[in-house]
Amino acid sequence: MTSDTETILTTLAARGETLAVAESLTGGLLAAAFVEVPGASRVFRGGIVAYATALKATLLGVPAPLLDAHGPVDPSVAAALAAGARERCGSDWAAATTGVAGPDPQAGQPVGRVYVAVVGPPAAHGEPERVEVREFTLEGDRPAIRRGAVRAAVDLLAETLAVTLTP
Amino acid sequence: MTSDTETILTTLAARGETLAVAESLTGGLLAAAFVEVPGASRVFRGGIVAYATALKATLLGVPAPLLDAHGPVDPSVAAALAAGARERCGSDWAAATTGVAGPDPQAGQPVGRVYVAVVGPPAAHGEPERVEVREFTLEGDRPAIRRGAVRAAVDLLAETLAVTLTP
Repeated sequence: MTSDTETILTTLAARGETLAVAESLTGGLLAAAFVEVPGASRVFRGGIVAYATALKATLLGVPAPLLDAHGPVDPSVAAALAAGARERCGSDWAAATTGVAGPDPQAGQPVGRVYVAVVGPPAAHGEPERVEVREFTLEGDRPAIRRGAVRAAVDLLAETLAVTLTP
Repeated sequence: MTSDTETILTTLAARGETLAVAESLTGGLLAAAFVEVPGASRVFRGGIVAYATALKATLLGVPAPLLDAHGPVDPSVAAALAAGARERCGSDWAAATTGVAGPDPQAGQPVGRVYVAVVGPPAAHGEPERVEVREFTLEGDRPAIRRGAVRAAVDLLAETLAVTLTP
């Protein structure tokens, strides 16, 4: 994982762009995967772990009606979390995770249901800002689901940035 | 580590109190050490990884003059980070880390210099709010220093809460 996050940070550094994250079920693991790279501070600005649902609104600006209507585990919420991290941390790019790590289902979503999102600047002048959201149903126990969600966010970020990761 | 953070969360749950964190060099690892405990959501509200110095002011309300005068690796900044997490996350308790993980010294502080802080409600009526700050000089490489800072924050929190951790 370190080599993948290092590749992403190196790519962003070469482009003069910065990164932030917003996390729910991964609870800091996504931020940690970037901060473990020496020199991360050139690119990685910070992250917000909005574990309690109310903090998704107060810390990251996710609209409360969206949370009320869809619950915290939802593709629109994932996109809003990433947008909030990008704005509050003043970064070019942001990635976000939300999902159900278990042991119990949450807000009508099963254990293992995960949404990851990436937001960033337009690919070309005149195009809209990039917003990518992906849904997963991950297998395994709580640690496996959390690790899988980090992996999914890193992969979506790499794909959106057109960075090829070493298999 | 999981059993220690679980003990702390169980103690706080029994007291009806909540927890948040603010992190710099640990970059999400402290939050992750709590979120990995099943049922953490009863107690753990969230965390803010203010990795870029400017975010310590904007996301956590650390006074900019304090950052300008002392740099980000400073005992007063550690206390202000914890106080900011407590206020912004609406928790009873907060723990914070700041320090130099390396590979290079930062803002006049050597690699391995770490400050951890814990803030919380008064121990008794009429007493001031609790503010505990501790300085460490940790040995080892970047991962070891980051792990040591998480350990130090968990230990200071346990000590402040008068929780006995299993050795």
